[in-house]
Amino acid sequence: MRYDTVNFLTDYGLADEFVGVVKSVIHSIAPTVRIADVSHNIAPHDVRGGGLALARSAAYLNPGVVLAVVDPGVGGARKAVAVEVGDGATILVGPDNGLLAPTVALVGGATAAADITHSPFRLDAPGPTFDGRDLFGPVAAQLCMGVSLAEVGTPIDPALLMPAVMPVSAREGDTIVAEVLWVDRFGNCQLNVDPDELDATRYSLQVADAQRPARRVTHFEALGSGEVGLMIDSSGMVAIVLNRTSAAAELRLGPSSEVRLHVGGTDGGVTTPVTLGKLA
Amino acid sequence: MRYDTVNFLTDYGLADEFVGVVKSVIHSIAPTVRIADVSHNIAPHDVRGGGLALARSAAYLNPGVVLAVVDPGVGGARKAVAVEVGDGATILVGPDNGLLAPTVALVGGATAAADITHSPFRLDAPGPTFDGRDLFGPVAAQLCMGVSLAEVGTPIDPALLMPAVMPVSAREGDTIVAEVLWVDRFGNCQLNVDPDELDATRYSLQVADAQRPARRVTHFEALGSGEVGLMIDSSGMVAIVLNRTSAAAELRLGPSSEVRLHVGGTDGGVTTPVTLGKLA
Amino acid sequence: MRYDTVNFLTDYGLADEFVGVVKSVIHSIAPTVRIADVSHNIAPHDVRGGGLALARSAAYLNPGVVLAVVDPGVGGARKAVAVEVGDGATILVGPDNGLLAPTVALVGGATAAADITHSPFRLDAPGPTFDGRDLFGPVAAQLCMGVSLAEVGTPIDPALLMPAVMPVSAREGDTIVAEVLWVDRFGNCQLNVDPDELDATRYSLQVADAQRPARRVTHFEALGSGEVGLMIDSSGMVAIVLNRTSAAAELRLGPSSEVRLHVGGTDGGVTTPVTLGKLA
Repeated sequence: MRYDTVNFLTDYGLADEFVGVVKSVIHSIAPTVRIADVSHNIAPHDVRGGGLALARSAAYLNPGVVLAVVDPGVGGARKAVAVEVGDGATILVGPDNGLLAPTVALVGGATAAADITHSPFRLDAPGPTFDGRDLFGPVAAQLCMGVSLAEVGTPIDPALLMPAVMPVSAREGDTIVAEVLWVDRFGNCQLNVDPDELDATRYSLQVADAQRPARRVTHFEALGSGEVGLMIDSSGMVAIVLNRTSAAAELRLGPSSEVRLHVGGTDGGVTTPVTLGKLA
Repeated sequence: MRYDTVNFLTDYGLADEFVGVVKSVIHSIAPTVRIADVSHNIAPHDVRGGGLALARSAAYLNPGVVLAVVDPGVGGARKAVAVEVGDGATILVGPDNGLLAPTVALVGGATAAADITHSPFRLDAPGPTFDGRDLFGPVAAQLCMGVSLAEVGTPIDPALLMPAVMPVSAREGDTIVAEVLWVDRFGNCQLNVDPDELDATRYSLQVADAQRPARRVTHFEALGSGEVGLMIDSSGMVAIVLNRTSAAAELRLGPSSEVRLHVGGTDGGVTTPVTLGKLA
Repeated sequence: MRYDTVNFLTDYGLADEFVGVVKSVIHSIAPTVRIADVSHNIAPHDVRGGGLALARSAAYLNPGVVLAVVDPGVGGARKAVAVEVGDGATILVGPDNGLLAPTVALVGGATAAADITHSPFRLDAPGPTFDGRDLFGPVAAQLCMGVSLAEVGTPIDPALLMPAVMPVSAREGDTIVAEVLWVDRFGNCQLNVDPDELDATRYSLQVADAQRPARRVTHFEALGSGEVGLMIDSSGMVAIVLNRTSAAAELRLGPSSEVRLHVGGTDGGVTTPVTLGKLA
């Protein structure tokens, strides 16, 4: 076996049988491969969210095949692809809709790619809506078994793969204009802000028209009740957090929400009680 | 080992420890068996939904034991059974309440069956409510290890197993009277309608008193915004779909909802704006 | 390999990639270990709920390492620990916040313990919030590979581990004053009441100001529609149940709710129709 692990991420959820069926298909082709779930609860059709989750995980996944399917365009014009990175250390399989792009970029770019839309390993299927089962899963399994990229599809120029559009933070004077990339289960809100961008320890955090003090901390318990913190999260990015409370719920933030970090602010407490009502 | 796979479906959910405990029991008896999750998020007590999910999966599951537990009657009068299909290619284990029946029928019927309610492999238990842990799991594991159907229970006539009651679609002139079998995570609504039953490409879809045009398409992206499609789904059945939108939410459909497909309809757009408000 | 199983419980949820990343880290260190999920949907930060779920599972888990992470104090002052029980039959790894304590007590107490907060096996990490990935997972994997308790941390006196505070039921005359320990997916409400404490077969169940008859039954189907039962649950504790209905929803109960069981009550039916409205 060339690869012994399939790292598996989808928006299939865990209520329907989709994930189980894809795994059964993979094991029918590659009986001893380990299928390592990354997540199957990416929000339905959320290509950006799935791409970010995969990129956050990438440094920790074991080498092998990455099978990622968030695919609202299934059955339509989008290509299906297999993308080799690290000269074959890992091959990513999925739709060419930007889902794989953040991870490919993170690990140094693609060293080869194939269009697998019309792969000879596509299974006959009763309907066209389940490429995870009928195409991506079988191709991932065949790659594990040693079938080459050239055999699963048609070589294409990796430069033609759909890129990811990642929001970058901006500066307006002392203010950082940022965006929420990810809200985790605990309500921590990851920003597209590198810790190096934070010059100060105290900020005024603006969400819509409301402002609230926020300060840099190194762990949750350093925060008083209701106090907003800026903390380096598990991916090394700046996150907005509260102690044992969901920052997303408290501040009404979600993926793609814009926030502004103004340098300065007071020693704690609430600076704009009048507008706070809009947040709470 | 006679069977190396236990395909596992329940309504236990993934918050409580039920699924993990059953797996631990199975592995304590059959340490190297692969337990392949089909779904554990069947709606609580939804025997029909669980039976349909298992039947949709059946063609893709690897041979072995199928362990299926949606069992509101646990501890009561219902029998527990093991059902052999394909002359032993697969054995299904679960309650005799119709859950296994659609799958058994789909694969050609039972070739043997046993009543395992009083199986010698039932574990002593602190309480009577968890037959997955105390009876079904241990029996599934013993079958994997080569114990025979006759040893896990008492032979019974497969013809006496509880049948499934599956709704069939009906014709009223040109109209197909159908029922939603399944709403998937994306809101696609599978009907009890075979694609061969669709004579036309354009229909008027009636839900309660509201009608809306619907047309046959081969992929989601063929649909305009808000347009309703009829598409062959991953099981080969007709499903009501929208592009990147939940048909179930848009049309207020759920499992068992009745819908009517009237042949004809316009070239798109909304034909009954007055009643549409009842849907949206 | 010294241990071949890691039993794994967290409050990480299954939407984020946390669980998958920890598993990948474990397998990168201990490639053939089986990671057995107990639950990852413990309510966020619910140390008590996680501790109870682990204790309920303990008798059924296969020997090995138990990795349990419900850790609101991550990065702060709480210790990280590895706790040996059964003279090394099992080692529990997690935060020293009471999460492990009910299980340790249940299996006879700790035979050794180590403070692993500053373990040499801690991974370098981009941020301090993910000890499951950076500390607990790696230590669990190293223990599987045969590294000793003394090597993963600093020996500590097990008597100094954080104890669990478990609510005990009380008697007020004939009345049992109890607390809901656990509401399962089906709405069954486990009480901190041993079946031996129930002297009678009929009780009046008081929740807040409302009372309702409840009687001991041995299976769900013995109950009429809307009738409340007291049943021995899968852990051998008394649970409040209804037949095919959520007792938690019907009676508005949740974890930590207080209930009172008054001996006696009528032969069924509703005794306090006036106050029932508060429940239903």
